[in-house]
Amino acid sequence: MATTFGNRINRARQILADKGWAGLLIGPGPELAYFTGRDIFSHERLTCLVITAEETHLIAPSTDEPGGWCDGEDAHRLAVDKLPKGDVGLGSGFTTAHVLRFQELIDGSTHLLPEEIMSVKERGEIGELARAGAAIDRVHAQVPELLQAGVTEEEVAKRLDELILHEHAEVDFVIVGSGPNGANPHHSHSERVLQPGDPVVVDIGGTLDSGYHSDSTRTYVVPGGEPPADFLKAFDAVAEGFRAACNLVRPGVTAGQLDEAARSVIEKAGFGEYFTHRLGHGIGLAGHERPWIVGNNDTVIEENMTFSIEPGVYVPGKWGIRIEDIVVVRGSGAETFNHRPHEL
Amino acid sequence: MATTFGNRINRARQILADKGWAGLLIGPGPELAYFTGRDIFSHERLTCLVITAEETHLIAPSTDEPGGWCDGEDAHRLAVDKLPKGDVGLGSGFTTAHVLRFQELIDGSTHLLPEEIMSVKERGEIGELARAGAAIDRVHAQVPELLQAGVTEEEVAKRLDELILHEHAEVDFVIVGSGPNGANPHHSHSERVLQPGDPVVVDIGGTLDSGYHSDSTRTYVVPGGEPPADFLKAFDAVAEGFRAACNLVRPGVTAGQLDEAARSVIEKAGFGEYFTHRLGHGIGLAGHERPWIVGNNDTVIEENMTFSIEPGVYVPGKWGIRIEDIVVVRGSGAETFNHRPHEL
Repeated sequence: MATTFGNRINRARQILADKGWAGLLIGPGPELAYFTGRDIFSHERLTCLVITAEETHLIAPSTDEPGGWCDGEDAHRLAVDKLPKGDVGLGSGFTTAHVLRFQELIDGSTHLLPEEIMSVKERGEIGELARAGAAIDRVHAQVPELLQAGVTEEEVAKRLDELILHEHAEVDFVIVGSGPNGANPHHSHSERVLQPGDPVVVDIGGTLDSGYHSDSTRTYVVPGGEPPADFLKAFDAVAEGFRAACNLVRPGVTAGQLDEAARSVIEKAGFGEYFTHRLGHGIGLAGHERPWIVGNNDTVIEENMTFSIEPGVYVPGKWGIRIEDIVVVRGSGAETFNHRPHEL
Repeated sequence: MATTFGNRINRARQILADKGWAGLLIGPGPELAYFTGRDIFSHERLTCLVITAEETHLIAPSTDEPGGWCDGEDAHRLAVDKLPKGDVGLGSGFTTAHVLRFQELIDGSTHLLPEEIMSVKERGEIGELARAGAAIDRVHAQVPELLQAGVTEEEVAKRLDELILHEHAEVDFVIVGSGPNGANPHHSHSERVLQPGDPVVVDIGGTLDSGYHSDSTRTYVVPGGEPPADFLKAFDAVAEGFRAACNLVRPGVTAGQLDEAARSVIEKAGFGEYFTHRLGHGIGLAGHERPWIVGNNDTVIEENMTFSIEPGVYVPGKWGIRIEDIVVVRGSGAETFNHRPHEL
């Protein structure tokens, strides 16, 4: 792993050189884990990895890291003193007070950490994301038997917590959106009792011990009844939108074009106004990360990027639909990490 | 509560006027709750309350707020378009990408939300913090019976989780640091088995349904043995340092002077090098907030500020000590929200 981190820092240095920047300041969270394998969360105290062309320094508080800086010291100055003069890239995990204080001290402009540093995945990372995909697939395989008329969303969610934890180190989230609750894309779960024929959106994810995330959604129908006819029509549109975007995935396409590919199918079917969110998001050591697969995003998709494709339709007061798989971009197109059937 | 939020926004406007700023942008978390009572966490999507001299606008994504902005829209521009030209105060809850994007769009400088906006508490907030203090006191009252030789830190922590949850809406954290584990101020808990005579640092906190936090630490000794003599000497120094700081609390003193008051007592007793963190932190809708009670902080303490006083001594490989109460600043001095005895 030391080689892995060294290679990552060397790649970051290449980008520093290309941009003519003096260095990078990386805050806590997935980015620090990416470069160091470390997980230091020091609350409001500054934790920061300094990367320059020649050196790396970890600045962390003594409360969380033996030998670190002590309360009362100017930790931001300790970090900035390690940088040559010039522009600096800031990791995405800093909060306002840190960003503004760095800007007071840095003798140059500040920029967001370039997207390309983490969005193109290494072979080992792709292996972990495939492992995460298989883990959440094994959970989804058990969902149909849980979705019975008479049980509540909460009861289903509680069981899903256990099943996700059995396959992962941590539960990230559990969404069980039945009937009208499915129309809220960020619904979690409620006391609502499942009814025969209810459409149910089940969006679940967890974190493996390696730090990589799973995230997959299927839409189900509670047995014992028929779902509404317009739901079935919209479901076909979402499934077709998914395929249209997935078939367009290749190096060189833009994120915005992928979003448009799914959206135009769903619009043609008459449900465009109900597809109220972006098509997807990057995934790796963060559950949501760049690239954002969203309209107007000109980010060019590259080989070995990994992201979700998750079109949906949400009709307020009635029902929701979402289908979500994680894919990796290969030279020949999309390869998916999730293999559960899309069909109802 | 509408009046409460209106009054808070009016006070913020007064500060805007005093500073000559065009407006404030407030991000998710405790600051948004303070001004609106709302708890919208939209992950990487922008949620932002815009406050100007004349208007307030809530900018939130449609995924989390009906009628909000849609993916693909330039949400930052929607927010900044509501602001007149001029300097802007940014809430502390934004992450790097939001801060940098706001700075691209704002026609003026950006500043951190002034400390005084939230650090001086209203009567109702002080009531909630007193209620939180009483809640965590009731938990600490049950700690002695849990700390028996032969049980593990984990077992104690698990029971404390239940007891905190019984008194609060949420558990914030549970630290059970026995023997050498107590020497790590941010230890949580482990499989270590308590031994007779072990010093044990128990630092616990939770969140009430109103959003206000408790946070209190006591140091205990496991019955059946005697703690080390140097521990007892250091304990007396920490308790005396606590009293020295507490007795100095009054409007007009600086945060740095409070830290110094406790630190000089502990230094005189010969344990200064082991008091490795600041004296305390503000508390309210956030568990940690300004004012930071730390050396070199010239923030002037005002009536109705609320913060922790928590001196400690940590001898690596041996044991730790910390005593922590939450206090409110009255005209006459400190009034404490925690009433459990400090004695071992």
